[in-house]
Amino acid sequence: MSAIDKVLDSNQRYADGFNQGGLPGNPTRLRLAVVTCMDSRLHLSKLLGLELGDAHIIRNAGGIVTEDVLRSLVVSCQIAGTQEVMIINHTECAMLTFKDEELAAKLRRETGEAPVTPTRFYAFTDLEENVRQQMRELRSHPWIPESILVRGFIYNVDTGRLLEVSA
Amino acid sequence: MSAIDKVLDSNQRYADGFNQGGLPGNPTRLRLAVVTCMDSRLHLSKLLGLELGDAHIIRNAGGIVTEDVLRSLVVSCQIAGTQEVMIINHTECAMLTFKDEELAAKLRRETGEAPVTPTRFYAFTDLEENVRQQMRELRSHPWIPESILVRGFIYNVDTGRLLEVSA
Repeated sequence: MSAIDKVLDSNQRYADGFNQGGLPGNPTRLRLAVVTCMDSRLHLSKLLGLELGDAHIIRNAGGIVTEDVLRSLVVSCQIAGTQEVMIINHTECAMLTFKDEELAAKLRRETGEAPVTPTRFYAFTDLEENVRQQMRELRSHPWIPESILVRGFIYNVDTGRLLEVSA
Repeated sequence: MSAIDKVLDSNQRYADGFNQGGLPGNPTRLRLAVVTCMDSRLHLSKLLGLELGDAHIIRNAGGIVTEDVLRSLVVSCQIAGTQEVMIINHTECAMLTFKDEELAAKLRRETGEAPVTPTRFYAFTDLEENVRQQMRELRSHPWIPESILVRGFIYNVDTGRLLEVSA
């Protein structure tokens, strides 16, 4: 049985008991967006106490404020009324375990030398500084209103606790 | 009290009861990655029955396979051993409610005409076709191994149910 078939079984049970239809699309209660890593140890709704309808959740490898994250945050702030953004990186991130050039070289060896995007993977070495860098990227974008509150955090995957990073 | 302070309170309680440290970073049980929308009505772990450590979760505005999502999936498949990818779009997506050109024109009026990235927001009009397009983007990328299983779905925010989209 494939993993997807397993989670589809779980979804059948979820839908059978589902009684939260009719919610608005915008996260109106908290007006919050969270940018974080795709890592499987981050159970966002539990670790932040989020209910259905509370927050936009944006996740990629590393919790990096890439152009695509800026796209999503512009939509969140400009279309959906978001007023606060949390950036959460975490301990033991896979992006601390390799170097961009090594992964790109391996992929080029295996698949040929033709130019391929992405050209960067955003692996990093300093977790705190990486969070600060993402805050700067977000703060400096002309389409993110200055009124948006931006705060950065490190999530400890062994303790479940968030630690704030000063800007 | 800001929304972020509220969720930090919730995190204190979560961390006080946390007993799931020491998990490996790679989603070893299911070897699954999920690409979906940032929408606040998608409670991924519940609607898919995911436990801590089960799956990489990648989310952006729309659940679009952008260059950044390809970056994340390359890391997931090449570094972390992922073997299956689900793409999930959903009913009532905010990306069905505006046009790229209208949002870009509004932002340029408000912030000036200097060129700004992102240049596209990926708003769309046909939900099923949008899911198919994302499957094609993923399937055609040279750095995603052909052995990776890719399936696409629409999540109904009013019923809690996933519906598969044929490729």
